[in-house]
Amino acid sequence: MASDAKPSDIQAVVALVESAGGEAFVSRGISRVIIGLVGDVEQFARLNIRGMRGVRDVTRISAGYKLVSREHHPARSAVRVGGVPIGPDTVTLIAGPCAVETPDQTLAAARMAQRAGAVLLRGGAFKPRTSPYAFQGLGERGLRILADVRAETGLPFVTEVLDADQVDMVAQYADMLQVGARNMQNFALLQALGAVGKPVLLKRGLSATIEEWLMAAEYIAQRGNLDVVLCERGIRTFETATRNTLDISAVPVAQSLSHLPVIVDPSHSGGRRDLVLPLSRAAVVAGADGLVVDVHPEPSVALCDGPQALIADDLAVLARDLRDLTGFMGRQLPEPATVPVG
Amino acid sequence: MASDAKPSDIQAVVALVESAGGEAFVSRGISRVIIGLVGDVEQFARLNIRGMRGVRDVTRISAGYKLVSREHHPARSAVRVGGVPIGPDTVTLIAGPCAVETPDQTLAAARMAQRAGAVLLRGGAFKPRTSPYAFQGLGERGLRILADVRAETGLPFVTEVLDADQVDMVAQYADMLQVGARNMQNFALLQALGAVGKPVLLKRGLSATIEEWLMAAEYIAQRGNLDVVLCERGIRTFETATRNTLDISAVPVAQSLSHLPVIVDPSHSGGRRDLVLPLSRAAVVAGADGLVVDVHPEPSVALCDGPQALIADDLAVLARDLRDLTGFMGRQLPEPATVPVG
Amino acid sequence: MASDAKPSDIQAVVALVESAGGEAFVSRGISRVIIGLVGDVEQFARLNIRGMRGVRDVTRISAGYKLVSREHHPARSAVRVGGVPIGPDTVTLIAGPCAVETPDQTLAAARMAQRAGAVLLRGGAFKPRTSPYAFQGLGERGLRILADVRAETGLPFVTEVLDADQVDMVAQYADMLQVGARNMQNFALLQALGAVGKPVLLKRGLSATIEEWLMAAEYIAQRGNLDVVLCERGIRTFETATRNTLDISAVPVAQSLSHLPVIVDPSHSGGRRDLVLPLSRAAVVAGADGLVVDVHPEPSVALCDGPQALIADDLAVLARDLRDLTGFMGRQLPEPATVPVG
Amino acid sequence: MASDAKPSDIQAVVALVESAGGEAFVSRGISRVIIGLVGDVEQFARLNIRGMRGVRDVTRISAGYKLVSREHHPARSAVRVGGVPIGPDTVTLIAGPCAVETPDQTLAAARMAQRAGAVLLRGGAFKPRTSPYAFQGLGERGLRILADVRAETGLPFVTEVLDADQVDMVAQYADMLQVGARNMQNFALLQALGAVGKPVLLKRGLSATIEEWLMAAEYIAQRGNLDVVLCERGIRTFETATRNTLDISAVPVAQSLSHLPVIVDPSHSGGRRDLVLPLSRAAVVAGADGLVVDVHPEPSVALCDGPQALIADDLAVLARDLRDLTGFMGRQLPEPATVPVG
Repeated sequence: MASDAKPSDIQAVVALVESAGGEAFVSRGISRVIIGLVGDVEQFARLNIRGMRGVRDVTRISAGYKLVSREHHPARSAVRVGGVPIGPDTVTLIAGPCAVETPDQTLAAARMAQRAGAVLLRGGAFKPRTSPYAFQGLGERGLRILADVRAETGLPFVTEVLDADQVDMVAQYADMLQVGARNMQNFALLQALGAVGKPVLLKRGLSATIEEWLMAAEYIAQRGNLDVVLCERGIRTFETATRNTLDISAVPVAQSLSHLPVIVDPSHSGGRRDLVLPLSRAAVVAGADGLVVDVHPEPSVALCDGPQALIADDLAVLARDLRDLTGFMGRQLPEPATVPVG
Repeated sequence: MASDAKPSDIQAVVALVESAGGEAFVSRGISRVIIGLVGDVEQFARLNIRGMRGVRDVTRISAGYKLVSREHHPARSAVRVGGVPIGPDTVTLIAGPCAVETPDQTLAAARMAQRAGAVLLRGGAFKPRTSPYAFQGLGERGLRILADVRAETGLPFVTEVLDADQVDMVAQYADMLQVGARNMQNFALLQALGAVGKPVLLKRGLSATIEEWLMAAEYIAQRGNLDVVLCERGIRTFETATRNTLDISAVPVAQSLSHLPVIVDPSHSGGRRDLVLPLSRAAVVAGADGLVVDVHPEPSVALCDGPQALIADDLAVLARDLRDLTGFMGRQLPEPATVPVG
Repeated sequence: MASDAKPSDIQAVVALVESAGGEAFVSRGISRVIIGLVGDVEQFARLNIRGMRGVRDVTRISAGYKLVSREHHPARSAVRVGGVPIGPDTVTLIAGPCAVETPDQTLAAARMAQRAGAVLLRGGAFKPRTSPYAFQGLGERGLRILADVRAETGLPFVTEVLDADQVDMVAQYADMLQVGARNMQNFALLQALGAVGKPVLLKRGLSATIEEWLMAAEYIAQRGNLDVVLCERGIRTFETATRNTLDISAVPVAQSLSHLPVIVDPSHSGGRRDLVLPLSRAAVVAGADGLVVDVHPEPSVALCDGPQALIADDLAVLARDLRDLTGFMGRQLPEPATVPVG
Repeated sequence: MASDAKPSDIQAVVALVESAGGEAFVSRGISRVIIGLVGDVEQFARLNIRGMRGVRDVTRISAGYKLVSREHHPARSAVRVGGVPIGPDTVTLIAGPCAVETPDQTLAAARMAQRAGAVLLRGGAFKPRTSPYAFQGLGERGLRILADVRAETGLPFVTEVLDADQVDMVAQYADMLQVGARNMQNFALLQALGAVGKPVLLKRGLSATIEEWLMAAEYIAQRGNLDVVLCERGIRTFETATRNTLDISAVPVAQSLSHLPVIVDPSHSGGRRDLVLPLSRAAVVAGADGLVVDVHPEPSVALCDGPQALIADDLAVLARDLRDLTGFMGRQLPEPATVPVG
């Protein structure tokens, strides 16, 4: 309350909170009174207490998410994708081309991914592009290519879905559905994914707080799908030397607030091939449950994000670093999928 | 090129650019060589020139948008919504409740809006909410309420659409469709709006650059709808005293780059009722083509964003300021719609 | 407190706070306990309550500034610079060259400033430059030029001081001392300015919150100098179309928290000449108590920030806009200094 | 150049650049002309080419630093502090209390630091505090305590210097002088450090780009002191769960641009004790040449930044992780100083 709040102002706040089914606790000091509220926070938000006479400020303490919160579910969760775990006991490498271009390029990239130790394949068939004049992906044809490559290599795959409408179709092909950073608050899409029965990879929005990211996961969980993996992929800052700024702290912070697995995308975070290995190592020892990395057999002709894709020379280094640091963290590299996938 | 680039490195870049149908111009200085490229920029982006030997950096000069650019369309455009213009000769006030709650509340808010000088009504039937536990709007029932209030008051209305799937349905009711900040890069939605035949109000994303905002508008334009109005509504920064930071410079900057009208939302920018009037005045004299303002007959019980809604006492001041500053800018307040709307 | 906090945890917090001379008020709800603290906040900050068992989070409510706060000094203050007021009843234009280069250039710029309606001259003799290879200013010779131009034109002047050591020397010449954005938290400099007996123009840091800005002003006030004018000059964001992002909301927000005058620098905010007029108009109607604007007789040869300087053609427009909008705001343009200055 | 630039406009730019001693290379495309400039970039910046007729935009390619650049000095440098190296072959741990409070607390913290493997001591005698009501440090008395603890433990020490005036005095006691984030662009201080003859630890500013950080280092180098160590300590973003956002990518990026050593401060980056270990590990494998970590024998009574200080239990884990990951990176932990220090 403001320093000049009257007793009647205080009484009015208490009465309003109680009329809304909440409890209000008044703390009186020498120069200031603080009122603590307990009850349905959303309900309180609607009361516009901040606008009442004598009120100086309103500060929200509790969280806007429950199902994904660690408060009610202290043990960290693992999510299985086509039989492959992503969770606290493993470090799972997901790799593949940013965009599916041709069957040959996709198969070659999948073989590269396997050489680097990947047990899951990534690849985009529907590409969200900032400019309408950029390559938009092959669409369903790309999904069929990914399914063929899965049959050939045994790698389950994750691919992006752009719109609520597409969810069922994409889910018929994919082992895991990805929500891109620009769609993190596309609530229609999140709700559709709550009903889909396949795990979801939820990328953090470019300027989303960790709390907002967890509330986006809650949208999916609330509709019945708790198989959500969070993916930190860099946030937008004033720095221009990198495409985005990898928020490495987001890994331990999100894991302390939520039981969901948290992985890192070092390729989109930095946007530069020379940063992928250092950021991958940093992610693993910060506690990430996995990595998602761009690889391309020939980055110089890639239709999307070539400058950040690893090439063949980098793969052995990544595989070795991953093996050593996974061991250092007391975790294991997951076994490849052995059951029939799809 | 790097200072140690070899002639063969330079030749390789030139050859690659030319093979892609572009032109490469080599500028040689004492310690450095610069190569200028002219041609299809998207094509160049795929070449991964940055990864070539001897290349130090690649800087993009030209824009990823054309139809909305002022370069090819120097005169600023006006968009008509239910007969009401938004453009360079007028300052158009759009006002209404953040969320449609009941017929009475909506009608009362519309009457308030008219007292403040509004010629268009705003109101949300589908509400994008960060937390899944917050009020999500009345849906199609809300649209019917808005249509009834339009019939009663003569105010054409703008309302938000959340998903590509909803576009046709919402367009049957609304005079203008709004894309919210969180959906600015929901490309499926943007493309659906390109085919809808109603004007679009495109809010700037929370961390979108002005260039990305214009590329989002280009998505709509490219599918055939040039009736797009840009709305600056505050960006995300480190400052916590305001909900967002109104980027007032975005008004003249966007107008210098694009022929589309640019309006300002002072309510969401600041998130505080006490800032709405100063920010509204600032927007008008910075050259904004209109304002969109939250009003609510009883903000203390509003289901959404009560703290930022204007109340009855503010309206006369807003109306007077708007009239005076519109005159100062050599513009006019638009006439209310007189033709049957809908 | 965390949901699993024990009564002994709560008791420990209360005991610690009381041992530090504070008061602790316990609010018990169904699932959560909140403890409100009243007393010396800095003292509390040292207690590390956040690290105690059972504590979930600690939120600070009260401010780290007092003397500049409006809470204890509700009326807004005016500061006089060489007889010219900057405060709530006036809109004071300060103009001049970014850097003092020659006597002729400085006098010409001062005459330009007067034509635009300026009653105070600005000009840099000591220039803080990001690169050590940029022009660093004329030093004390520049101060003498400014003093000569003051004698010639009657314009009191404000100039930047870079280091605590320089304060007394600069104060012998200048009517007002400026703290640049990069020095906003140079605490040795702020303390030296507290004892100087001349008014201070305190620019907001590039990424300073409004609260930090007010705490910087408090440093000066605490050492005995309450004649501080706050200057908003744009903050750092991800946007690259402008040099900085003018935080126009900072004007009414800072004025609501502090009794000190608040002015705006539209030249450094945008960094572009074409934005100076729109941002100047916006600042005045948002409630700014003044403007500080770059002018240069020949920007194309300016040694500093030429691209943002107004030229002769702009001055009449600025003078007219300023006169009209000052009247609109119910304020006056201040009279030029008539008393001998210096 | 703009698409409607005339040949005379192009000629005017070329003539101006040449008159300033530079070279201008004209690249002509179908719809656009690009002019590349080679010469003294600062000189070009003064020409205000952007304001000339027909010019669309000016983009700067080359860097504002030379002595610290890797372009002219490809091998990475090591800096020796009291005999202890910080450079590419080692991972150097610097630890100690945020603020020197008493001889006992400082000695206890130094012993803790040694148990964690530290070979250099850190401790603040002069504290830059955002609020003037916070503890400001013991001043020269604190320096004497640090010198006594050095004599007792053999640990050379680094301590912050706030003002150009203090540099010589602090250098009489300290082995390395620290520039805090808020002073990164206090150019008077940087210049004074250029002449001091002791190594400098330069923290990155809260919103400084990597390029600005390197230009600040250049200020010191230009005055004759090349013994500069860069320290990444978190940047300011919109995220509020952490005090700052550790920009882990800044380590490899700064190392690719500059030959100077780069270390990381995981304590101030996160501002939370629970993040210090994960961020320390991440820093080492991202390639950091060292760490600077807060430790305190009793954080709950620390006068400064208690919530982020490591306690005794954490030390063994830090020592083990550091040893293992230093080995993994093919580096060594440096030997403690054996020569008489001071």
